[in-house]
Amino acid sequence: MSKLRVAVIGAKGRMGAEAVQAVEAAEDLELVAAVDRDEALETLTGAGAQVAVDLTHPDAVMGNVEFCVRNGIHAVVGTTGWTDERLDALRGWLADAPGTGVLIAPNFGIGAVLTMRFARQAARFFDSVEVVELHHPGKADAPSGTAVRTAQLIAEARREAGCPPQPDATSTALDGARGADVDGVPVHAVRLRGLVAHQEVLLGGEGEMLTIRHDSLHRSSFMPGVLLGVRRVPTAPGLTFGLEHFLDLDD
Amino acid sequence: MSKLRVAVIGAKGRMGAEAVQAVEAAEDLELVAAVDRDEALETLTGAGAQVAVDLTHPDAVMGNVEFCVRNGIHAVVGTTGWTDERLDALRGWLADAPGTGVLIAPNFGIGAVLTMRFARQAARFFDSVEVVELHHPGKADAPSGTAVRTAQLIAEARREAGCPPQPDATSTALDGARGADVDGVPVHAVRLRGLVAHQEVLLGGEGEMLTIRHDSLHRSSFMPGVLLGVRRVPTAPGLTFGLEHFLDLDD
Amino acid sequence: MSKLRVAVIGAKGRMGAEAVQAVEAAEDLELVAAVDRDEALETLTGAGAQVAVDLTHPDAVMGNVEFCVRNGIHAVVGTTGWTDERLDALRGWLADAPGTGVLIAPNFGIGAVLTMRFARQAARFFDSVEVVELHHPGKADAPSGTAVRTAQLIAEARREAGCPPQPDATSTALDGARGADVDGVPVHAVRLRGLVAHQEVLLGGEGEMLTIRHDSLHRSSFMPGVLLGVRRVPTAPGLTFGLEHFLDLDD
Amino acid sequence: MSKLRVAVIGAKGRMGAEAVQAVEAAEDLELVAAVDRDEALETLTGAGAQVAVDLTHPDAVMGNVEFCVRNGIHAVVGTTGWTDERLDALRGWLADAPGTGVLIAPNFGIGAVLTMRFARQAARFFDSVEVVELHHPGKADAPSGTAVRTAQLIAEARREAGCPPQPDATSTALDGARGADVDGVPVHAVRLRGLVAHQEVLLGGEGEMLTIRHDSLHRSSFMPGVLLGVRRVPTAPGLTFGLEHFLDLDD
Repeated sequence: MSKLRVAVIGAKGRMGAEAVQAVEAAEDLELVAAVDRDEALETLTGAGAQVAVDLTHPDAVMGNVEFCVRNGIHAVVGTTGWTDERLDALRGWLADAPGTGVLIAPNFGIGAVLTMRFARQAARFFDSVEVVELHHPGKADAPSGTAVRTAQLIAEARREAGCPPQPDATSTALDGARGADVDGVPVHAVRLRGLVAHQEVLLGGEGEMLTIRHDSLHRSSFMPGVLLGVRRVPTAPGLTFGLEHFLDLDD
Repeated sequence: MSKLRVAVIGAKGRMGAEAVQAVEAAEDLELVAAVDRDEALETLTGAGAQVAVDLTHPDAVMGNVEFCVRNGIHAVVGTTGWTDERLDALRGWLADAPGTGVLIAPNFGIGAVLTMRFARQAARFFDSVEVVELHHPGKADAPSGTAVRTAQLIAEARREAGCPPQPDATSTALDGARGADVDGVPVHAVRLRGLVAHQEVLLGGEGEMLTIRHDSLHRSSFMPGVLLGVRRVPTAPGLTFGLEHFLDLDD
Repeated sequence: MSKLRVAVIGAKGRMGAEAVQAVEAAEDLELVAAVDRDEALETLTGAGAQVAVDLTHPDAVMGNVEFCVRNGIHAVVGTTGWTDERLDALRGWLADAPGTGVLIAPNFGIGAVLTMRFARQAARFFDSVEVVELHHPGKADAPSGTAVRTAQLIAEARREAGCPPQPDATSTALDGARGADVDGVPVHAVRLRGLVAHQEVLLGGEGEMLTIRHDSLHRSSFMPGVLLGVRRVPTAPGLTFGLEHFLDLDD
Repeated sequence: MSKLRVAVIGAKGRMGAEAVQAVEAAEDLELVAAVDRDEALETLTGAGAQVAVDLTHPDAVMGNVEFCVRNGIHAVVGTTGWTDERLDALRGWLADAPGTGVLIAPNFGIGAVLTMRFARQAARFFDSVEVVELHHPGKADAPSGTAVRTAQLIAEARREAGCPPQPDATSTALDGARGADVDGVPVHAVRLRGLVAHQEVLLGGEGEMLTIRHDSLHRSSFMPGVLLGVRRVPTAPGLTFGLEHFLDLDD
């Protein structure tokens, strides 16, 4: 069987370098191009790339993706910065390239994607839901973007299901004890030396509790998701937003 | 709005008594009959029951369910002992009662059902999966039936996805250290005074880990699932096996 | 061997009733008196009580303990409200009763006492320490008194050891995300239906993490500590403050 | 203040290289020698080393330590293989060098040492104790040596305290479900891709549970223990076995 021909754009960045390694190590993929800033995108077409992985910068990603789509190269994009305007432009390019697929994934961590999905699905069955995220002490924002997004998904699911507000009889509290309020979902941020990136979703109901915990210990954890995207995007023409759509979970 | 008229069969058993309380406490339900062994099932028809909850014994359940189906009473059944023969008989009765629904649920704990579902869905994305269940020391079987069932679902999902065997370089081991082997999934049973019923599914992949943990602290935790079944079964003619089909999770 | 003769004061309160049961169930103890409010303390002397357990109210405890000490009855006291003035008065009574012992224990939960001790001992060896407590949503205060006390012990141990402030690069935070600040130790309070009383102390250092977690599921968990106090107090003349002094941990 | 003059023996091994870095990074220490196999130990005396860290091999350690003791150089030893005969020989050398101290530490991880100590101290207060260790799937032995040692310490503490056997009503079990039996303490070994080295000690009593968990994510976690040993050994003449004796925990 011939291998799928893959290019990595942003190949010298931290994530890009991981992707280069991961593609090289995969038996069904062939790395045909690895370009970084200041290198011409024509390298991709010259090498006959079928799929490009873009792990660059919001300033560069639009040009890269436009080039890919116009040349019929499927794209797997981890770079952020996708505003509604940008997505509209991308949809326009794709309309002219009916067989070409683009996957934009805010998070390639399969564990993180599953955590968010499971949390969203479970949220309406429990009286109480809180999020605890735990990171190394060098992190600048609290809570993490992933924790805020998770809490928003939980809040949305509960709103749609008509869940009442969470029970909470707290009448005397120290400032901050009950965490940050994200759409009615308390979110707590722990910072500890020795940690990397961890998140717990705690769901409590009458006489029972469900906990979904994700521990991310290394950025290599994103690579299985990148490879899964690479393998699936040729069969998914148009725009796919979010890796979860490639996980075939609706069974 | 008129309330749904509900009967409980096995009303003096531990679970049945909980169900009686739960139905009485629910604003949209009316408890119209609560019968125990040696009481006539005609009480149900006399009381105009629309849904019956059966929490009895394998010896009694077939007669109870046949009576319900033949009288157009929907049934929510927690009693075990459903062999293929029994299920076939039930399907036969239902064929003659096209508008009537029966839900058989091996487990009414929504947390337990979600744990099994999430474990099954996540299993194929990780290299390694193990199950740790923890119970009070009075429990007779190890591992628990739920843990064995969870491991079987995990094994089945991995088989269907073509996952390779789990990596394990163990060459020197004390007997039992690596747990019980359930279809290739290691299952560990912990017994500790003070515990009730708990289960963890641990999934590990390159650089990350996903943990799904369910803590069941009281049998009241089964009642939200029973009530959900009661409310949904009138709109689900025929046989439904497993509460998960009423959870609308396929989104 | 003759059994130790034990009285319970406050025998009809929730904790007192548990203590009555626990003493009756212990083979080496004999319950000789169980008095509640409006019953005369002379019942204790009449019954020949050697040790009294006081689980009453701050308004009543001083009179009870004075009676015990003046009559040579050792006392195990769980009732709160011990100001410095009260302790001074108690020490005065004990000075006149040299063989009599009184144990005052703010917490009889051996697990809770051990958690606080271990947290205090470990605190100075790690760069980061945070406390997460989790309780049922009916709790009025956040964080719990135990969590605040634990954080204070941690802070004190770190101050004495000359530990620098905890590392934390947070520059953008939602209000409350980083928890309550108790003497420089972040404390987070989670409130979930289905929970009882739980506490985690998380300690993080270079490349490693230590977690000490205590789950308290029932007030029966306090009884082993009460019984331990009852058995030990006859051999500990004078005032002992805190159950930990009876745990013989300094090995 | 003059810095303590430190040598590392085995400086090119994995642990030794970490130690070299750690000593260089410490403001109160000066690295004066870093020798590996085939380099003369006289380098240490020539450099005026006050303390030597030995992270070599059982075949080399005896010669190294003898050289240090005979030259009045204190030693901090992480190398294993210390039989009773070897310890006797070492004690003989130390008898002739009254001011010199040697620390032998089977484990320099402060978290691991604290976990074992806390587990041993807590063990006799609970009805049930089990150990769950979790490691990467490349590990050859199951359970880990640390878990076996922890279980032995727990068993010893329970025996000394006269604890009865652990309650366990298991009558039907799959092979291995209840773990390995180490002196009556069940030990379970989990192997998961993505993990490093983790251990939980679970203690359960009437209505409560205490969990002590240690996560070791990187061998850098051993360095704070090595440095602590280096700083303390000059004030501890003779043989000290186990880092715990330098942790000043008996308060």
